[in-house]
Amino acid sequence: MPTHSTPWTGKAPAPSTLRSDAARRGGPVMPSRSALRPLGPDEISIVGGFWQQKQQLNADVILAHCENWMERVGWIGNFDRAAAQTIGSTHSGIEFVDSEIYKLIEAMAWELGRAPHTALEGRYHDLVARVAAAQEPDGYLDTSFGRAGQQPRYSNLEWGHELYCFGHLIQAAVARLRGGHDDELPAVARRLADHLYIEFGPTGRAAVCGHPEIEPALAELSRATGDERYLELASLFIERRGAGTLAPIAFGAEYSQDDEPIRSATVLRGHAVRALYLSAGAVDVGVETSDASLLDAVRMQWSNTVARRTYITGGMGSHHLDEAFGLDYELPPDRAYSETCAAIASVMLSWRLLLQTGEPKYADLIERTLLNNVLASPREDGRAFYYTNTLHQRVEGSIPAEDEVSARAESSLRAPWFEVSCCPTNVARTLASVGLYFATATADGVQLHQYGDYDVATTIGAGELRLEVRCGYPFDGGVRMDVTAAPPDGATVSLRIPAWAVGATLDGTPVEPGAPATVVVHSGDTVQLELPVAPRIVQPHPYIDSSRGTVAVERGPLVLALESVDLPGNANVAQAILDPSGGLRLTEHGAAVSIRLEAATETDWPYGASVDPARRSSDEIELVPYFSWANRGPSTMRVWIPTMLK
Amino acid sequence: MPTHSTPWTGKAPAPSTLRSDAARRGGPVMPSRSALRPLGPDEISIVGGFWQQKQQLNADVILAHCENWMERVGWIGNFDRAAAQTIGSTHSGIEFVDSEIYKLIEAMAWELGRAPHTALEGRYHDLVARVAAAQEPDGYLDTSFGRAGQQPRYSNLEWGHELYCFGHLIQAAVARLRGGHDDELPAVARRLADHLYIEFGPTGRAAVCGHPEIEPALAELSRATGDERYLELASLFIERRGAGTLAPIAFGAEYSQDDEPIRSATVLRGHAVRALYLSAGAVDVGVETSDASLLDAVRMQWSNTVARRTYITGGMGSHHLDEAFGLDYELPPDRAYSETCAAIASVMLSWRLLLQTGEPKYADLIERTLLNNVLASPREDGRAFYYTNTLHQRVEGSIPAEDEVSARAESSLRAPWFEVSCCPTNVARTLASVGLYFATATADGVQLHQYGDYDVATTIGAGELRLEVRCGYPFDGGVRMDVTAAPPDGATVSLRIPAWAVGATLDGTPVEPGAPATVVVHSGDTVQLELPVAPRIVQPHPYIDSSRGTVAVERGPLVLALESVDLPGNANVAQAILDPSGGLRLTEHGAAVSIRLEAATETDWPYGASVDPARRSSDEIELVPYFSWANRGPSTMRVWIPTMLK
Repeated sequence: MPTHSTPWTGKAPAPSTLRSDAARRGGPVMPSRSALRPLGPDEISIVGGFWQQKQQLNADVILAHCENWMERVGWIGNFDRAAAQTIGSTHSGIEFVDSEIYKLIEAMAWELGRAPHTALEGRYHDLVARVAAAQEPDGYLDTSFGRAGQQPRYSNLEWGHELYCFGHLIQAAVARLRGGHDDELPAVARRLADHLYIEFGPTGRAAVCGHPEIEPALAELSRATGDERYLELASLFIERRGAGTLAPIAFGAEYSQDDEPIRSATVLRGHAVRALYLSAGAVDVGVETSDASLLDAVRMQWSNTVARRTYITGGMGSHHLDEAFGLDYELPPDRAYSETCAAIASVMLSWRLLLQTGEPKYADLIERTLLNNVLASPREDGRAFYYTNTLHQRVEGSIPAEDEVSARAESSLRAPWFEVSCCPTNVARTLASVGLYFATATADGVQLHQYGDYDVATTIGAGELRLEVRCGYPFDGGVRMDVTAAPPDGATVSLRIPAWAVGATLDGTPVEPGAPATVVVHSGDTVQLELPVAPRIVQPHPYIDSSRGTVAVERGPLVLALESVDLPGNANVAQAILDPSGGLRLTEHGAAVSIRLEAATETDWPYGASVDPARRSSDEIELVPYFSWANRGPSTMRVWIPTMLK
Repeated sequence: MPTHSTPWTGKAPAPSTLRSDAARRGGPVMPSRSALRPLGPDEISIVGGFWQQKQQLNADVILAHCENWMERVGWIGNFDRAAAQTIGSTHSGIEFVDSEIYKLIEAMAWELGRAPHTALEGRYHDLVARVAAAQEPDGYLDTSFGRAGQQPRYSNLEWGHELYCFGHLIQAAVARLRGGHDDELPAVARRLADHLYIEFGPTGRAAVCGHPEIEPALAELSRATGDERYLELASLFIERRGAGTLAPIAFGAEYSQDDEPIRSATVLRGHAVRALYLSAGAVDVGVETSDASLLDAVRMQWSNTVARRTYITGGMGSHHLDEAFGLDYELPPDRAYSETCAAIASVMLSWRLLLQTGEPKYADLIERTLLNNVLASPREDGRAFYYTNTLHQRVEGSIPAEDEVSARAESSLRAPWFEVSCCPTNVARTLASVGLYFATATADGVQLHQYGDYDVATTIGAGELRLEVRCGYPFDGGVRMDVTAAPPDGATVSLRIPAWAVGATLDGTPVEPGAPATVVVHSGDTVQLELPVAPRIVQPHPYIDSSRGTVAVERGPLVLALESVDLPGNANVAQAILDPSGGLRLTEHGAAVSIRLEAATETDWPYGASVDPARRSSDEIELVPYFSWANRGPSTMRVWIPTMLK
């Protein structure tokens, strides 16, 4: 029987001195010092349940879907034409489509690191060979710039995305290294990074790329190779941003976070993906250079952004215009941009901060964001995606053609491919590596941050520790952990108690939500965690004007949504009023609530005296998990449901 | 003593057969047949009060401001370089800046038509001469296309804006003709229109311009010159749109209204200015070709747009991304785009429909839009403008530099000039001609649609009719009309009773709001209209989610706003709660209401249990006319004020 200790306070432990070896197997982000040590694919694996289904869908469908589309639209072919020096004006797609191939390669690398797969291994090597063939003798590698008939290299740092693409190539190489292979792709990445060090390093040009991404990539490559120059270059890029080296653009300097140095900014702003990738890089640099003030700046920005600029789904970015954060509390459900890539970038940032501080709030946001935003993107069959993730669909979405490239899928169902198609490949690399975000280790034991069906087998200070975690997550809150091996004196396991899990118990003993509960375990122990998933009403902060007079319903880790396909006569959700006094009833995957339909009369002029809506009696209607919406055909939908019509 | 008749029903009278002579003096829009006949500048003139101040500001400041800026940024110089065949790649500004010079010339033409002004006459002719010098031998005239070093003519109909610019040149020429002068500019316009007839006419290419504007311009030029070919070409452009002749663009075909023929569309959609200019042109074509189904289609689109897609200020366009209409009831106050040009275009459309139908709802919307959106654009001193007109300023706006070109002034105070600066010149041409929208005539008499201090002197069927209208509008609702001359048997004058004017009286007799009141008048009569301007609470339609739980306050024709400079301690308007039970008190220009400040605590995560705000006692706070906001320095502001915080 495990010994229960008092809940962990969530204060940041002193950094351990875990030092990674170059090219040691591991997952995304391997800091040389951190409070919590990330586990590698040889230490943790998803073995069943909800997440295993998602990983299998990714391996079986999504990877091939992305690869096939990118062959079809000529984006992979760009590398062949570049290698043959024939690309000139025949480049396919916008200037940064190289990055999509790199994210697919990264996804394949994680997938291969997770489990051997001969056919995939062949496809991976074929792709890498085509990319490698396009690398120029000095290491430069971009199919959009620098060859005959193209704009010169680095001639448009504001919009050219060259370093952004390089960052994704490097991330793919890091994934390959973390899979234990130091072969062709890492060699390409080293040559590229060496070129960048000459071009942009201490004696090179003092410039940055309009789209951050190279920063975390170089820091991670430094970790994975031991080459300190890459870290130095990442640090230079971090420090240069905010100095106005980029030429003015219509969206303003904040779009590229060039308005203010990251050390003095207080909140994330501008283009959401840019801001989040940059922050991730700043954490990496801050960790490796022991720069507490840089880390503190990012942590404050995270806190203020989460408190004022984040959707209930974890989504970030309120503006369609510039894919950007809005002002504080400017979070319109119907115009939520909530780009899938921003959610993924948010997970990347929170994971880094979790590793550094051990604070459970970062794992809470990862849970929320993965389940309610990242997973909302892929369709159930893995063959279509949301780029933006609205929280309120006012009209029934149209159905994109399965064989056409879409715009960003506004007011439509999920689309198979996009003109700017950053999200599908980002989903692919995230799903392939998602289990690596579930738990960490310290010298004393293991910390469970996310719940699913997975096995942990690692070595802590005192010896081997093996755990089997099983649960019905995210629909059921019971989590069982079997300890199949532990050092003789036991090991400490901490289990995150989500902030929403009021009434949680660990082996029948109440535990505090919002902090980890820790147990000392021995071989053969079983620990049973119960997280109540009863549906609950959630209110928006009073300053979120766009949601005044509404509530949302959550259920365990899931945000629920009302879809018109579940309303009598497929009524538009505009007519739906939630009656909180009607109670909430748990269903298999969602919750049933009391919904009254009140159709308001259309008036010639929509402002004036009160409109008395026609009332119908209440029905019990089932709300569904937000991530699963729009899988049953066109529908209107809302997360925030009025409790009063006006 | 005038004889009161029953209020006019607002039903459309049968079209009269008033036939305009070519080049007859008149105002914007002179249909050859209409229910109401527009008055020319020799028939109506503003002589004092609020509107006279605005027209004087325009004549004294705004015209010169626009001219000086356009010299400074090289947009006028484009014509000189085009004439000298040296423009090549030296064109200043985006591709459609020619249109700004044309709108300024149009403004000057209206101003010269209103009153003689020797110095302005010289500036007008200088500008026209510089434009004329750039016209090519075949009539084509665009400084962005077709010369050495430039893209070919008509090579980018989606974005090139050539026909849009031509439309504005033609509108300027029409204004000159309507001032009674058939001289250089009309000759330039005829040559251009002749070129267009060859290029795009029945035997030319079947194409349209990405930005409508040529349609109303050609129809009006046909009216002003009697040349039927121009009407034929306008009709072709109207009929071709919606057939997909434009190449696909990222914003979708609806951006340019090329998604559906105007005859089958049911609501305005896509780019708001484009949609409204197109509709204006469709009315002109429908009128001149007696095409009732085309007119009916536009009237239905107007009704649906006003009922579901229009801000309380009359503003149109909810999307920053594409300057476009949102979906039905998607009217976020904080992200209101409400472009000044869209408001002007809305006035242009409503005026055409008012002339055709006589229905007062069109005049109601003109009043609302002029006072609450168009007039919100210019700063009190006429040297800075709003391009977009938000209804909720969340942070104190920054102050744009007086000597720099701004972006579109998001989150800032009014700016002196913009990179895309369509609004200042549009305001200029509107203010120069605004009095021409105030009244109309029929064979029996005159109809007063807008109130101000103005004189009417016209000839109706039975003889001369002279009226002097005097009032304290828009702040005071008393309107006096003196009849200084009338035919022996009298004349019928109708006075619009705005829909908001509940309790209005005409010579002490109650009259119905929302319909004109008519009186038969004789020389020497005085008529006294009283429109109650007591402040009133207005509620949004239940489906306007972004304003749920809020109210606005109106006062006579004015929409009021709460500005933080009027709150204790300059508190952010986010904290303000309006207590409707506290009563409303009329002030000189606004209204005093009971406002309670409730500062809500910031929480780590903005969704959850109820936040109990700190309450302060209520104060009586004065709301100011929306159009005047941000004239006292940086402020937060809102039109829709919560009556409950959450």
